[in-house]
Amino acid sequence: MPLIEPRTLKGFRDYAPALMIPRERVLQTARAVYRSFGFAPMDTPALEYAEVLLGKGGEESDKLVYRFRDHGDRDVALRFDLTVPFARFAAQYVPQLGTPFKRYAMGPVWRGENTAAGRYREFAQCDFDTIGTTANAADAEVVLVVNALFEALELGDFTIRVNNRLVLNGLLESLGVLDKPVPLLRALDKLLKMGRDKVVEEMQREAGVTAEQAARVLTLAEAEGSNADKLTRVESLCGGNPKAAEGVARLRELLAVAAAGGVPDGRVRLDLSIARGLDYYTGTIYETFLTALPGIGSVCSGGRYDNLAGLYTKQVLPGVGASLGVDRLLTAMEELKHPWLAGLTTTAPVLVLQFPGASLVECVTLATELRRANVGCELYPDGAKLGKQFQYAEKRGHTLAVFAGPEELSAGVVKVKNLAARTEVGVPRGELVATVTAELARAKP
Amino acid sequence: MPLIEPRTLKGFRDYAPALMIPRERVLQTARAVYRSFGFAPMDTPALEYAEVLLGKGGEESDKLVYRFRDHGDRDVALRFDLTVPFARFAAQYVPQLGTPFKRYAMGPVWRGENTAAGRYREFAQCDFDTIGTTANAADAEVVLVVNALFEALELGDFTIRVNNRLVLNGLLESLGVLDKPVPLLRALDKLLKMGRDKVVEEMQREAGVTAEQAARVLTLAEAEGSNADKLTRVESLCGGNPKAAEGVARLRELLAVAAAGGVPDGRVRLDLSIARGLDYYTGTIYETFLTALPGIGSVCSGGRYDNLAGLYTKQVLPGVGASLGVDRLLTAMEELKHPWLAGLTTTAPVLVLQFPGASLVECVTLATELRRANVGCELYPDGAKLGKQFQYAEKRGHTLAVFAGPEELSAGVVKVKNLAARTEVGVPRGELVATVTAELARAKP
Repeated sequence: MPLIEPRTLKGFRDYAPALMIPRERVLQTARAVYRSFGFAPMDTPALEYAEVLLGKGGEESDKLVYRFRDHGDRDVALRFDLTVPFARFAAQYVPQLGTPFKRYAMGPVWRGENTAAGRYREFAQCDFDTIGTTANAADAEVVLVVNALFEALELGDFTIRVNNRLVLNGLLESLGVLDKPVPLLRALDKLLKMGRDKVVEEMQREAGVTAEQAARVLTLAEAEGSNADKLTRVESLCGGNPKAAEGVARLRELLAVAAAGGVPDGRVRLDLSIARGLDYYTGTIYETFLTALPGIGSVCSGGRYDNLAGLYTKQVLPGVGASLGVDRLLTAMEELKHPWLAGLTTTAPVLVLQFPGASLVECVTLATELRRANVGCELYPDGAKLGKQFQYAEKRGHTLAVFAGPEELSAGVVKVKNLAARTEVGVPRGELVATVTAELARAKP
Repeated sequence: MPLIEPRTLKGFRDYAPALMIPRERVLQTARAVYRSFGFAPMDTPALEYAEVLLGKGGEESDKLVYRFRDHGDRDVALRFDLTVPFARFAAQYVPQLGTPFKRYAMGPVWRGENTAAGRYREFAQCDFDTIGTTANAADAEVVLVVNALFEALELGDFTIRVNNRLVLNGLLESLGVLDKPVPLLRALDKLLKMGRDKVVEEMQREAGVTAEQAARVLTLAEAEGSNADKLTRVESLCGGNPKAAEGVARLRELLAVAAAGGVPDGRVRLDLSIARGLDYYTGTIYETFLTALPGIGSVCSGGRYDNLAGLYTKQVLPGVGASLGVDRLLTAMEELKHPWLAGLTTTAPVLVLQFPGASLVECVTLATELRRANVGCELYPDGAKLGKQFQYAEKRGHTLAVFAGPEELSAGVVKVKNLAARTEVGVPRGELVATVTAELARAKP
């Protein structure tokens, strides 16, 4: 039989250990942070009725969905995000589960997108949300979660940009152009990319506003100075508009909570130019930028919405949340030569070698002792030449090698080699665990 | 617009927090155990070329595969196990990654099966394998991993049944019926279900053996007594057949390693009747049974194979591994009223209440202090009536509630309530962390 070519589909990738180890670490870090704020895990199926998933993001995005007929001729589709299935879930279960309902979800989603821009057709999302409450405490908490998450990810400095759609809507209302928010905000979102003049042009052309109105929208978006200065500016520009006033009040409280929650000064920045899409978000908006890599865009974004599950239930479920782009983040970590991606391909710090001719039972006894002391410990499976076993240990990134030849064994001694420092000590058999534990503690970066 | 009915596909299910919290714990436990033996994580895409996935398990199983044409009119399919994609992965990468290669993988797989028997069409697998070596150390290690895993899962007593296909093949060879192993072993696999007489009948009918030959196969399978007795029995029945002798030697060493690795006496049981399928496994075979629930069958099974990836590469990759049936295990845990499934729906032991009228900033300060001390801590999002907030805490399963009304705050006091014991203490603000930490340590089961 001819061989089948071993290959993956375009836009899909394998995660070999060197990439999967840091990926699991990122997910585990997110899990621990989300849990420390009381978010609970949930999951939904990868496959759903197409009618449940489709028609939410416009025809353009529907085209990207993997959709087919299953064995029972049902019209089914693979989830393209974690939000739409969460909305369906919430409609079904939140009446029993009660509110507030705080959840996180992490898992793959699928989009048949153009892969030109280094995008993958399968990628992981990692979301958290609080639903069933309009309380600003939940909005402010998002900032605390994002702050804790990125501190734990050891990615260096970062900025959490916040805005509130109420402020944007209030401004548009006070300008008398609230009937045309969509083209205006769409143009505003392009400010960084296109520059001021082209945005003004687009606003005039697409939203039919005057140059002066466009300029006022941009004045707000371009407001400089401290967060407090910007809020004062909003108040003067929007002249007592109640929507804008509510947005300002919520942003002020969010900033105070961020400070109380230990977020360093300057890390949260009001950015009145971010609008984040057009229909879904209705209140606070978040984006997160790495100081070392601003070019890759926001690595964690989200916002407040008025009603999560309106397509499936009459129960109104307001909420707020954000999503970590796990695979974009991994790309960033690769670019930044993040220490988590140092190419380590082992999960156990110690390799127990099998001295050629040594008894397997003896080697297993050593390894078992170490594991009982909570030291991760791999056993080389056979008595290959020691050089080969050491090579394996170095390639995989073990920290220590433990071994005992017949001479050592009869003298009641075990050898512990630090593979990076290339130092080797012989220790009495009874001191193995203590020596290994001490060596590992010393070797930690 | 009419509402869309929020529903999942038949055979698919949502994981609400009460089920997802123990599920994450099971996966996390498996991850920690696999890592402690040096297995490294890897993952492959959910979607692959159909030709890569199909034709491995026979036409019957191919029918169960979710298969469709993607946007580029490619013939694609969802993975139905983690082994076939691993074989494809190994053919592509193991030449660079080197051997021995130890991996674990956990994730969903999809099969359009009949759901009558409570089977799901989406379920998680959780596999570990060592490939690139025929060393018996790897076979014996499987027993140590399974033992560590089920001890960590706190499922009570369990039995790891082992066999070796070499023993079965050696017996068939010595009986002169090695050309008909498939119908013989298929019949043997039914011994528990159908009973002795029907198995003998089937062996005569399907494999054309004599009643005496069938009886000898069954004599081996039904051997009673200690593991050592059974091995001696095999030796006498197979009369020096070299295959059987090798199988016996490997099983003897495996039992010695299990003892050295701390597996309690009696937990590993030779069971010469298990054959586990017919084509794939060639050496050691494993099944794991919970003493409290033998009826659900094996919850962790595996074996040794001669060549993982022969369909994709000429490189011969022998290996050995096993797979944890995560969802079957969860069902078992539900039946056993396992404490991990006690209905807890929170991930944070402490709920900080918002005393009606209290300052949000003050509450956030309390919660932040606790989190800094590594105490998971949720903040109720608004100043609802205290009764409602307590109800929420009890429903979700928080251990402690922390709160401070205006009186307490002005006196510099915070209240800590143990929700199970219904005891409440007021402590000076500065002693909050110490009190909460002590109360939590006391409340641990």
